[in-house]
This record gives sequence, C-alpha cells and structure tokens, in this order.
Amino acid sequence: MINSLGREIPDFVEGIGKLEPFGGAWTKLSKGWMDEPTIPAPNKATLPHKNKICISLEDAIKKANPKDGMTITFHHHLRNGDIIMVQTINILNQMGVKDITLAASSLNECHDPILPFLQDGTITKIWSSGIRGRLGKAISTGALDIPVVIHSHGGRVRGIHTGKIQPDLAIIVASAADCEGNATGAKGKSAFGSIGYAIIDARYAKQVIVVTDNLVPYPCIPLSITQNFIDFVVVTDSIGDASKIATGTTRITKSPMDLRIAKLAADAIEHSGFFEPGFSFQVGAGGASLAVAKFIRDKMKAKKINGSFMLGGITSYCVDMLNEGLFETLFDVQSFDAAVSNSRLTNRHHIEIPAALYANPFNCGCMTNKLDIVVLGALEIDVDFNVNVITGSDGYIRGASGGHSDTASGAKLTVVVCPSFRGRIPIIKKKVHTVVTPGESVHILVTERGTCVNPLHKHLEEKLKSAGIHVVDIHDLEKEVDSITGIPKPIHFLDKIVGLVEYRDGTIIDVIRQVKE
Amino acid sequence: MINSLGREIPDFVEGIGKLEPFGGAWTKLSKGWMDEPTIPAPNKATLPHKNKICISLEDAIKKANPKDGMTITFHHHLRNGDIIMVQTINILNQMGVKDITLAASSLNECHDPILPFLQDGTITKIWSSGIRGRLGKAISTGALDIPVVIHSHGGRVRGIHTGKIQPDLAIIVASAADCEGNATGAKGKSAFGSIGYAIIDARYAKQVIVVTDNLVPYPCIPLSITQNFIDFVVVTDSIGDASKIATGTTRITKSPMDLRIAKLAADAIEHSGFFEPGFSFQVGAGGASLAVAKFIRDKMKAKKINGSFMLGGITSYCVDMLNEGLFETLFDVQSFDAAVSNSRLTNRHHIEIPAALYANPFNCGCMTNKLDIVVLGALEIDVDFNVNVITGSDGYIRGASGGHSDTASGAKLTVVVCPSFRGRIPIIKKKVHTVVTPGESVHILVTERGTCVNPLHKHLEEKLKSAGIHVVDIHDLEKEVDSITGIPKPIHFLDKIVGLVEYRDGTIIDVIRQVKE
Repeated sequence: MINSLGREIPDFVEGIGKLEPFGGAWTKLSKGWMDEPTIPAPNKATLPHKNKICISLEDAIKKANPKDGMTITFHHHLRNGDIIMVQTINILNQMGVKDITLAASSLNECHDPILPFLQDGTITKIWSSGIRGRLGKAISTGALDIPVVIHSHGGRVRGIHTGKIQPDLAIIVASAADCEGNATGAKGKSAFGSIGYAIIDARYAKQVIVVTDNLVPYPCIPLSITQNFIDFVVVTDSIGDASKIATGTTRITKSPMDLRIAKLAADAIEHSGFFEPGFSFQVGAGGASLAVAKFIRDKMKAKKINGSFMLGGITSYCVDMLNEGLFETLFDVQSFDAAVSNSRLTNRHHIEIPAALYANPFNCGCMTNKLDIVVLGALEIDVDFNVNVITGSDGYIRGASGGHSDTASGAKLTVVVCPSFRGRIPIIKKKVHTVVTPGESVHILVTERGTCVNPLHKHLEEKLKSAGIHVVDIHDLEKEVDSITGIPKPIHFLDKIVGLVEYRDGTIIDVIRQVKE
Repeated sequence: MINSLGREIPDFVEGIGKLEPFGGAWTKLSKGWMDEPTIPAPNKATLPHKNKICISLEDAIKKANPKDGMTITFHHHLRNGDIIMVQTINILNQMGVKDITLAASSLNECHDPILPFLQDGTITKIWSSGIRGRLGKAISTGALDIPVVIHSHGGRVRGIHTGKIQPDLAIIVASAADCEGNATGAKGKSAFGSIGYAIIDARYAKQVIVVTDNLVPYPCIPLSITQNFIDFVVVTDSIGDASKIATGTTRITKSPMDLRIAKLAADAIEHSGFFEPGFSFQVGAGGASLAVAKFIRDKMKAKKINGSFMLGGITSYCVDMLNEGLFETLFDVQSFDAAVSNSRLTNRHHIEIPAALYANPFNCGCMTNKLDIVVLGALEIDVDFNVNVITGSDGYIRGASGGHSDTASGAKLTVVVCPSFRGRIPIIKKKVHTVVTPGESVHILVTERGTCVNPLHKHLEEKLKSAGIHVVDIHDLEKEVDSITGIPKPIHFLDKIVGLVEYRDGTIIDVIRQVKE
C-alpha cells in the first residue's frame, strides 16, 4: 500500500497484524474511528484491609503470575535515571519468561542493559514513543524479528484503550506511595513531578505494581495514582539515579545559533495573529524550543498580553511564567526538571494531567486540540514540511515521537525550530528519512537562515511578510543548504522493516528499514 | 430461590433479566466475580477547536440523538434543589421518547414532577440508590411494571462498569464549567461541593452533557470532570433552587434522644479497640450520626488521638475537624453543606473522590475497604442485625441505600445508631421489612436503651462490658420495645415485586413488594 504521503506500507506484518495506511492528519478522526473497537478495563476485586506490600520487586512480580507472551508497561518520567525497568526485565528473564511485549512510554540510554534480552528471545516486541542509545542502534540493525512500533504519547493511550496494547502487568515507579498504592511523583527524595503517562497503564493493566523508595503514611497526597487500580506495592532502596531524575532547573540554551533561531521564532509568533490575550502555548525543553519561551515571555510583558495555559512537558521556566501571572494554568503530563515538583505540590493552578487528557485523539477533546501555539524541534524536515524526530541522519533510531504529532495536529500555529544544518549534515531535505509528523500539521519552520511558511497557509505568509519577517521559500532554503553542505552520501537500507511509525490515530505514517552496516 | 438471609428472590424478572441471590457480604467478592463481564467505555473522537456549547438544554439533548429505550443518568449532588432532571425528562417527553431507563444516583422529593412520566410510558425502568416522596409511594403501589433496582453508591459504579447500566446519555450539573466541559461543583453561586458520583457517568456514557449556570473562562479549576469526556455544554440561568443546594452549615441535632444515643455510641467506639491513633472514620449527616462526631471530637482532644481520614458524605463539621488537625485528610464523594465547597477548593487535604474510589467493590481496594469506624442510621434493624434503610414502617419506599452497605462491609467497626422506637413504631424488630445491609456487616447497635453487640463479635462484647458499657441482648431489647409499643398491625403486601434491592456485588439481597392500599 502507498499512504497519503507516498510512503510504502505493508498490508500486514507478522506479529503485528493488518496495517492501515495514514490518510491525513484528521482523515480517520473525521470518519472511520467509530468502527474502532475499544476494550474493557479489567475486572478486579479484593477483600477489605488486605496487605498489598510485597517484600521485594521479585516477590511482587511472582505474585502477578507472569507468563510467556505477556505485555508489560513502563512510564518514562524518571527519564535517564530509571533503574526499575532493567531490574524488572532481569527478574522476568531469571524466571524464564519469554516472548515479552515491552510497552514503554519511552526508552532511554539507561535502558541499554536490556539489549541482551532482545537478543535471547526474552523480549520479542516493543511499543514505545522513543528509542535511544544502543537499543535504537541494535533495533535499526535488525535485533528483533518483529518491527518495533513507534507511537505518539496520545497514540499510546489510544492504543491501550482500543486494545492494540493489552497490558498484563504495569510497573509504576513513584517517588512517594502509601501501603494501598496511592502514589505520586511530586514529592520525596526522587521526586520527578507529573506521573501523567502511567495513569492509563494503571487503569488497563491486569496487574499493577507500584514501586517506591519512599513509603509514606496513608494517604499519599496528592493522589496522582489511586489505590483502586493497584494490586501490589514494593518498597525499594532506590528507584533510580537521583542525579539523572532530579536535575535541578532546566536552563535556557547559551548556543548563539539556538538563541538566534528562538528569537526569529518568537518574532514570527508575535506577528502570526495567534499571539493574543488568552493564548495557549507549548514548548519543548530542548535546544531552541525552550529559548522561544524566553523571548515570548519578554514580549508578553512588553505587550501586557497574558495567556491561558501552558501544556505538556513542563519546565521550571513554565513555573516561573505561571508565578509571574503570565499564564493562568500549567497542564503537566511530564515534568522536565526537579524544580517543577514543588510547584505541582503546592500550586493548584499547576495541574497534573493524564496522557489521555493531554493528547488521546479518541475522546471528546484532548488538550492538544485546544492549543494555540506549539514550538517543536526536528531531526529533519523536508520541503513538504514533513518532520522526522525518530531516525538520525545515519538512519538509526535515536529519537522520540513523543507529543510531536499530537501537538502539531491540534495547535492553531505549529512552529518547527531547527538549524538548517548540523555539522556537515543538512536538516532541511528534499525528503525526510522517516515521517513522524505530516507536513500538513506544520505551519512554519524557523531556521537561522529565515522563516519558511507552509504554502497551505498563504494568509499566514502574507501576515509575516507585512510584519517585516524574513520569509524564504523552503525549496530555496533546501538548495541553499545543499550548496553549503554538499549532498550527503545516501544511507543504505535493507528491505527488512525494523520499525513502524504509527500516527496518533493508529494508521501507519511510515516504516523504518534496517540500516546496512 | 432463597438467598442466604432466607429472603425469596425470583430467578428472573422480565425487563431486568436473570437474578443472582445474595450469598454473604464477601461471598461473590471472594469467588465468582472473575466471571463478571465488564464493558468497554465508548470510543469517541472530535476535531480540534470545535465548539461544544449548545444554545439550550433542548438543543443539546437533540444533538445527543435520544431514542426510545435509552438509558439516561443523573447525579444527586444538588440534593433536593435539583431542577435539571425534571427539565430533561420534560424535554424527552415532548420529543416523544418512550421507554426510558432512568439511572439516577438518587431521587429526592424535588423529582416528584416526573411521576406522570412513569405513568405514561416515558420512563419504564429506574435504577437508583434511593427514592423518596411521591415517587417512592407511587412505585410502592405499582406505578411501574418493571421493578426498580435499588443499588448502593459503590454498586452503581460496579453496575456501570459491568454493563448492567449502560448509559446512553449522562446529564452532569455543575456550578462552574468552561467551554470544553471541564466542570466542578466546588465554586460558583450554586456551589455544592464534590461531584464524585458523576465521574463514572462521564466515563461510560455514550453522550455527556454538562449543564451549568456559571460558565467560567477556560480552564475551569478544579478539573473535577474533564473535557475529554464531555460532548456538549449548556449554560442555563439556574441549575436549581440555591436555598436547597447551598444550605449553609449542617448543625448537630438538638434532640435530647439523638444526643443521648450519640453519646452512648461514642462511648462504645472509645472502648471498642478501634479508637486508636491513625483511625479512619465516617459518619452520616442525619440525626444521631453527626452528633457522634461531636462526642468523638471531644474524646480525640481529651485523649490526644489524631486520626487518618474521614470519608464519604462530608459536612462542615468534618471540615472543622480537618482544620483542627484531628484528621489528616477528608475524602469527599458528596458534600452535605455549602460550607464544604470552599474547603474543597483551597485545602489540598480535602480531596474530591470518584464513587469508584469511594466504594466500588470491583477494584483493587476502594476506600470503604480501608475504613476503621463507620456510624450509620437505620429505618429498622432486626434481631439478626439486618438493616433496612429503604422502606418505611408503612412498607413504602422512602429512603436510600446510599453508602450504607458499602461502608458497613468495609469498616472494622460498624455502629448503627437509632432510637428503639419512633412514635408508636418499633425500630428494633424480629425481622426487617427489607434488608439493605446484612447483619454480618453490623458490629454494634446503639439505642437510647443500651448497646447491642452482634454475637459474631463476642470479643467486642467482652471489651465493652469490661469498660462498663451497658450491653443488652438484642432479643431482649426487641421484646422490651414490643412491650412498650405493642406489636404494630402487619402491612398487607401484594405478590407483585416493585423493587429489587441489589447488594453492592450485584446479587439480590431482598425484594420489595407492592403495598396493598
């Protein structure tokens, strides 16, 4: 099959099933979703005053009765400091469990130690929004027979709700929990802020284990995760490397290039028509994205414009803007630095939200649908404004879909910020290796060499031009960049599909093929 | 069939289906619940930046496409001030919709105006935890062909989760809401506190309408109900009679009889072994129940004992105890007076909880399972400690199951408080007309004539006796009361079953037969 972006998609993949081709950002959401089955949350029951506390993670896992072919879920709020996933997979391996489907909200370098378990048949399938480090490289060179499925944060909720992912066991790591399993990430020595991605796991998994290094007297407040979903509670010495979980305050980039891009992006936003009182806003934590917030903050103060809400990954920079009264509310599905936890704990306008409310396309309106402006990064972007945030310039899986396509589709103004090239590698390309977010969802691209406007939005281009913004045609920019960097040697791919990029609605937007080494 | 309490239950009821007899408070929860089917929450989808606001309740109902045979749900947090249910049923009737199943969390006197719609075939089935006023009387005399089903608050959640109640349309009334349907009862001129019973309706209904008299700028904080479940928003002049919704502060009874019973109950609790640091506590708002809290509060101060949490229907009296530091936390599924709303809004230890977390027996542990002490009222109690809170001494339906059986089953100490007779009517009986809570869940009964201990708890009886509590045998008490009041004339019932009393696990604990007039 050829999908609406011209990407070739197989009809069927062994171990995954029948595939549906991507047909446009809102095509399935406009028609066809009604036939999508949803699955019931499991039925459970327990007697009163029963003890849920297990003596060890191993004890809890044994009580959950793991089986070959099981699906296990994890959340990535501990970022690169998580140690519980590796411990869990080690225990399952020692128990001889095979053929596990690993459904993690994201995978980081800290998960490299599970690589041998991909090679020995312990783990045979992976669902994740991102894969990095040695895992990404190994998968890209064919470590698994069944392709990994890359989903968005909203798509993951949809996948669980519709039964594409059917969790047998969910591991929920908390920086504070009580004996009944009420749990949070907002307090304790390993505080990591919001636990928003794990809430759907708690609701749908047949068994749920809460792991904490901080057992508090009942009840654990806030009730980010509630006891009615929790089967077992494990108290452990450490839930991870605190220096990688709780890493202070996210700083604005000092890179002159990123700052220049950020300033240009803020200028474009200012004149886009969406920088209005009551606007809502989301920015990422990396590179130029967060720096855009700095310039927008200045502009908000100068023009006395106050916004409605900030959404998504929340940094201490967002907290500052909340405290200054620039925004009314923070909706926090994932906290990017430790300084955020205290705000979450004490400010009732800093609200932890489940991933379902954040970005699930299959409901009455997630919050990304309510976004005015989002600023996003890119590993590559092409002349059709298609964005790649999953594979690197070498073709290896090394990024994350995250909330990219969720927010891009919902926002009234989607701004992609990136340098036009990195090293000698062009970022603006004729065709990206892998599409994660379709070009139709991107309004403008801002690089250090100027701002490109998606031709779908002529009106926006006129607005920016009349405000004196340096607007360039993306085709011209692409050629300009090529003339500087030269055209990189093509990557050699084999036929084998190692990854499927699922769009948030469950259709397949692209495939990732094995890199020939 | 005869259930474990000796009550005769039909195998099958036309319009309801096959019935399962009650077999003991924990029998089904110990075995058999695993086979209970659960149903999926509906799949929905919407395009971004779509307008949910409808020009009127009628407009919203039309958009929800109501059909003959539909099930519609309501919540009763507005107590006797609710006007929206009557408006809704009127609109459906005018649209010619027939054969409606009304699934209200409770029905009050304010709902009397729907009576004609029971008689003309608009409403043919009712699920509710309580029915009062003219509706109760009419149903008791055969107004409906299909018996009403009386459930507990926890049982209602279970019923929706397992598909016994499948809501097509949920009406959620809020004292504040935004354009996306984020909603709360905690603020606004008609503030009514917690909206905990409606949360399950929002999740499972195929269409959900939020009705408010107070549209606030996005987002409406707190997010008691979230936008991802809401299809339509209606702004109306009034959601009800504010004088009956927001009725100030609940006062402690001044009745000398109730105060005497409350004092005796507090004495029994003090010496029960459960009045210990960290204990959890629930009391109702009516009659002697709330007065027990007054005496317990004094004892906590005198003995310097602090508790863990108070649960359930929350009064301003509970708020005072929270603010005094006597309890750590309030878990609030329903607020009994207006003074509670502000606490809910500002104190993060005053936590709104969904009914699922409060009392659903089919999960990993609801909060009633964590209760130490609950104090409950009774319309009648018998020598086996079975409690009736649904039918009056005349046999008519006039009460509510509410959280009675939920809390009684979960608490370590269940105390029933009531006078031994009212007027010339004995309250302590050989056999109650209708069992709502089985005797096995009741530990002690406190009346003005002394305290009776359930013989299942010999150890407790010894404890109380050795503390000097006046313990009487319930059979002796029953005879004593009979000798005062005389034996009332028996009520004449017809064969027709007008109500089924569903135990929280879905089995049938009793039936209610038509009163012969």
